Amino acid sequence: MVCQTTFDYNFYNNNNGEVANDTRKRVTIVGGGNWGSAIACVIGKTVKAQPDDFFPIVTMWCRDSRKPGDTSESVADTINRTHENAKYLPGRRIPDNVIATSNLLDACSTSHILILVVPHQGIEQICNELNGRLLPDAVAVSLTKGISSENNKMKLISQDIEDFLGVECNVLMGANLAGEVADEKFCEATLGCRSAENTGIILKKLFDTPNFRVRVTDDFEAVELCGALKNIVACAAGFADGLGWAYNLKSAIIRLGLIETREFVNTYYPSSKGHTYLESCGIADLITTCYGGRNRRVAEAFIKSDKPLKEIEMELLKGQSAQGPPTAQDVFEMNEIYGFSEKFPIFTSVHKIFAGEQTPDHLYNSIRRHFAYE
Amino acid sequence: MVCQTTFDYNFYNNNNGEVANDTRKRVTIVGGGNWGSAIACVIGKTVKAQPDDFFPIVTMWCRDSRKPGDTSESVADTINRTHENAKYLPGRRIPDNVIATSNLLDACSTSHILILVVPHQGIEQICNELNGRLLPDAVAVSLTKGISSENNKMKLISQDIEDFLGVECNVLMGANLAGEVADEKFCEATLGCRSAENTGIILKKLFDTPNFRVRVTDDFEAVELCGALKNIVACAAGFADGLGWAYNLKSAIIRLGLIETREFVNTYYPSSKGHTYLESCGIADLITTCYGGRNRRVAEAFIKSDKPLKEIEMELLKGQSAQGPPTAQDVFEMNEIYGFSEKFPIFTSVHKIFAGEQTPDHLYNSIRRHFAYE
Repeated sequence: MVCQTTFDYNFYNNNNGEVANDTRKRVTIVGGGNWGSAIACVIGKTVKAQPDDFFPIVTMWCRDSRKPGDTSESVADTINRTHENAKYLPGRRIPDNVIATSNLLDACSTSHILILVVPHQGIEQICNELNGRLLPDAVAVSLTKGISSENNKMKLISQDIEDFLGVECNVLMGANLAGEVADEKFCEATLGCRSAENTGIILKKLFDTPNFRVRVTDDFEAVELCGALKNIVACAAGFADGLGWAYNLKSAIIRLGLIETREFVNTYYPSSKGHTYLESCGIADLITTCYGGRNRRVAEAFIKSDKPLKEIEMELLKGQSAQGPPTAQDVFEMNEIYGFSEKFPIFTSVHKIFAGEQTPDHLYNSIRRHFAYE
Repeated sequence: MVCQTTFDYNFYNNNNGEVANDTRKRVTIVGGGNWGSAIACVIGKTVKAQPDDFFPIVTMWCRDSRKPGDTSESVADTINRTHENAKYLPGRRIPDNVIATSNLLDACSTSHILILVVPHQGIEQICNELNGRLLPDAVAVSLTKGISSENNKMKLISQDIEDFLGVECNVLMGANLAGEVADEKFCEATLGCRSAENTGIILKKLFDTPNFRVRVTDDFEAVELCGALKNIVACAAGFADGLGWAYNLKSAIIRLGLIETREFVNTYYPSSKGHTYLESCGIADLITTCYGGRNRRVAEAFIKSDKPLKEIEMELLKGQSAQGPPTAQDVFEMNEIYGFSEKFPIFTSVHKIFAGEQTPDHLYNSIRRHFAYE
């Protein structure tokens, strides 16, 4: 059963099917995981509430991971039938005006705003499929956490997306646990926009609600890196929890992690304006992630057991990956190229502990001798 | 039994009793509560480890709260006999070279560094007793949290102390749960010094250890106000916990609390340098206090029960006062004088909830409509 076809898109067009003068923005969510499904709960409502600005149907692309011959229902079809992503966001109702599909091109080719919520590893393949096939004035918003590189140089994932797709790419990062966002519990986030006064205004309309408060800033490099690097800090916090370290030390880890984040931004993006660390994407996201996030949970389980990381992720995240360990590795490799590993003692230590090259004592000593105390 | 006399102070003088050329600093802790006893555990060791800089005995004044006719042992005598403050910091050994006394003048009159760790309410009486009786080159370090006022104008407690005692007063604030400090678990703190390059150097020597990392800054107003105002934010966090609010919201409270703290400093002390909020006294102390502190605990219990605050403090703090509620009241009254209450929605709401003038809904709405989202 393919429920998505029961929606008549044309019914929602302004002029009985004539769309030439339609200035409403069509929005697509690219990614049907935990966070993609949660943001669908927000966006589904905001587009409906602002019919002059947005087309009232949100398309949501979900990867069809069925093997050939598998006759079970696709994730997209299940979502359209049940309005629930039972695997990654069970128990939360995805609004009726969010229509899932497994067809990436159908989902994106007529869309004005593409919200990318896929793991870092999946970005390149998706962009390759979409390259040259988007509306010329489309803009992207990346919710993906991580760092990239090109020719041994540091690169933002949003920059990758811009290069692949040829469209402007902004970022949304913030203190958001997906389940809480979906439940309409109060949350906040930061939009890092390359043009805060143009795209920023329409994107704020799209995301901001009374319970999901969004602020726009043009310090987009710092916003994106805060979102990526916080997952490394959360791993350090998870180690701390697993080892029974105390409140004061955990708070120090969070603070020193933010200091390293600022140092990292200043090192690789010295043009960053640096006013972002007290925004939601900075300190608030860090606190949420270090207390309630899945990277913390995975790192805690890792340090308390002798199981490999993959096995822990299978047990705790149903096989999804925690972004902290690969981000720590990417950051370590980038820093090694420039000889900067020692400038970022917590980031480096997290990678080396996951790689089995250091014991937690090293992390403890990295903290005690941190450059922030000099 | 008065054990304090069993120590021969002269034995520790450099020149067999001749003290004229002795440049070592004598240190006194004024206050024998939870935090005073914990800091005694740090200071007792640092003075012993640096015999050229410090006189190796630390004096600790503890209030004798026995009623006339009470023949039980004084707190000071018990500490000297057992090296433990069983009432306020049970189970932790206070170093042998910390000598307690109930005599304030004896404790302070020959001291070069006075560390004041008494509740705000007790400062004036102590200063009155000491006024004109200190060494002329003595310096004070206040660990007391709160705000003061004079002729309807905002005043720092450290400024009160300077005015009362006629000596320079600095402040130490940071992410410190007393029990963890006493146990030599890793902690960090910020010294706010009026002259970071002079007094700051000797005070850093006094406080900094491998497990209690201290940084000095001259942004002393912000350091002191971070220490005071965090207790109000922790009450908001305690309400959030008591009401079952979630991670994202609690992180938002911590972040917005820090934004209000910065706004408060900028409003009343526009000369503040504003580089302090990522120091330990800023964000780290706030996180520790909002997760592990006693103001959080008291506020959580208050919002979940219909007991009066005093009863809850008696149950949870053995009758000691949480500083959050009176600080919230002082801040509210100061803001009212200037018509600023609405500039600080969380601070104001915390006071009004304790005063029975608002319900938690007000706090929730204060957060949703916070000026930080404008």
